[in-house]
Amino acid sequence: MTSELTVVGMGMIGASFALALRRKFDQISILEPDDGHAAHALASGQADARVSEVPPAADAVLLACPSDRIAGWIERLADHRGLVMDTGSVKGALIGEVRARLGRLPENWVPCHPIAGLEQSGPAVADGSLFEGRKVILTPQSEVSTDLVSRAAALWRAAGAAVEQMDPEVHDQVYARTSHLPHLLAFAYLLGVDSADLDHTGGGFRDFSRIGGSDPVMWSGIFERNAPALLAALATFEGHLGDFRRAIEAGDTDGCRRLIADARKRRAELEAE
Amino acid sequence: MTSELTVVGMGMIGASFALALRRKFDQISILEPDDGHAAHALASGQADARVSEVPPAADAVLLACPSDRIAGWIERLADHRGLVMDTGSVKGALIGEVRARLGRLPENWVPCHPIAGLEQSGPAVADGSLFEGRKVILTPQSEVSTDLVSRAAALWRAAGAAVEQMDPEVHDQVYARTSHLPHLLAFAYLLGVDSADLDHTGGGFRDFSRIGGSDPVMWSGIFERNAPALLAALATFEGHLGDFRRAIEAGDTDGCRRLIADARKRRAELEAE
Repeated sequence: MTSELTVVGMGMIGASFALALRRKFDQISILEPDDGHAAHALASGQADARVSEVPPAADAVLLACPSDRIAGWIERLADHRGLVMDTGSVKGALIGEVRARLGRLPENWVPCHPIAGLEQSGPAVADGSLFEGRKVILTPQSEVSTDLVSRAAALWRAAGAAVEQMDPEVHDQVYARTSHLPHLLAFAYLLGVDSADLDHTGGGFRDFSRIGGSDPVMWSGIFERNAPALLAALATFEGHLGDFRRAIEAGDTDGCRRLIADARKRRAELEAE
Repeated sequence: MTSELTVVGMGMIGASFALALRRKFDQISILEPDDGHAAHALASGQADARVSEVPPAADAVLLACPSDRIAGWIERLADHRGLVMDTGSVKGALIGEVRARLGRLPENWVPCHPIAGLEQSGPAVADGSLFEGRKVILTPQSEVSTDLVSRAAALWRAAGAAVEQMDPEVHDQVYARTSHLPHLLAFAYLLGVDSADLDHTGGGFRDFSRIGGSDPVMWSGIFERNAPALLAALATFEGHLGDFRRAIEAGDTDGCRRLIADARKRRAELEAE
């Protein structure tokens, strides 16, 4: 019996997943609206066939399309025989949207979030080792069997990833703090940079602002879908920024030093991990 | 006739400068209060002699001590025969402080700001190639001769640096935006990170927060001395952050997307440099 993987959306994530699992499946089919992307994926051997709907016999389906189309695909595939995985960065809102559309959660869907590669896009930058050593978070709900969750985990592990399960709300709060807020701050920061400043970027600018080059459509979608957790993280940040502003305005250098020492301690905890 | 360089403060900057210019001077003497640092500098050949005051015959003096001691040294050396250079990150406040102490600016002082190496410290991490390809900004005032400015520039170029002259106030505004504000934001951000978050730092956290590991004494001093320019840059940032917050609160995803696209354009201008 042949095994088949279908990838919906051959962007960087979808194409890298196809490459990483090339030998795990007898057949890899793709749904990709962009003719150039599809042609590249087939010509470079990332996939075997372009299809216009998900084959009923597919054993696994990876949804790596833009985030605003994921819920529609999950609804359409709700009674498909295969394992359905998405790759969205926000889990709580997606689960809520699917439940609102269907009145239930499908038994074949394991929500997944691979922590990898959001700064570039397209199949030309696909990399079969993209997931190696990266985390993939699964946030399965009670509707799905532990067997299916194990199958999803095994596929990501075969792609080299370290798999972890989290509650979707906790996931969204943690990634609001460690990923979404840093992107928001880098974007807001870049808006205040003067053209004349770009000659003087040796003092911290480059590291700090690198993530500010990320994709506007993807990130405005993430901000929209994770708004509650992101706004909470932002409020906490604004509180700490206010502490700094007041200390600087008051010439309270000791107070500033203590705040910086606390921040540095937090950073050192990370390095010790 | 022998030539002599004196370095006041054998931290990373001072020791790296000594190493880089080892062959340019017959004699390198150091003033360093820390016995361990001084012993390391002598034993490793970074310098020839430890002195307790700047030798009257020194041709050049590099002040690489903590920033709050720089003005005192410039005052003390105001009538010294040699070229005096400091290495502070903020120029306007220092020039003002020296003028307030002396009632004038010394004719032997060229204010310098090497854009290098603020995250580590001590002579053990000194590197003779630290300044190679880095910028060094000079902000000389009219009191100093162009000959002396040329001598300062030649020394930094001999250490491998690209030398540029700027007005001190413009320097402080530019570096408030490209260096001091990013550090402030990274510090404030780190204060809101939860210990549980440190397992989930693959989504932008590391690049963004790297500069948050910088030295509290040095950076609280920089924030104090560059307070006006830093607070102005901070106000601009808070305005842009407010634009984002309001767009996210209102569910205005198109507005968010436009803000992100503008930020990304700014970042792309940098990459094109």
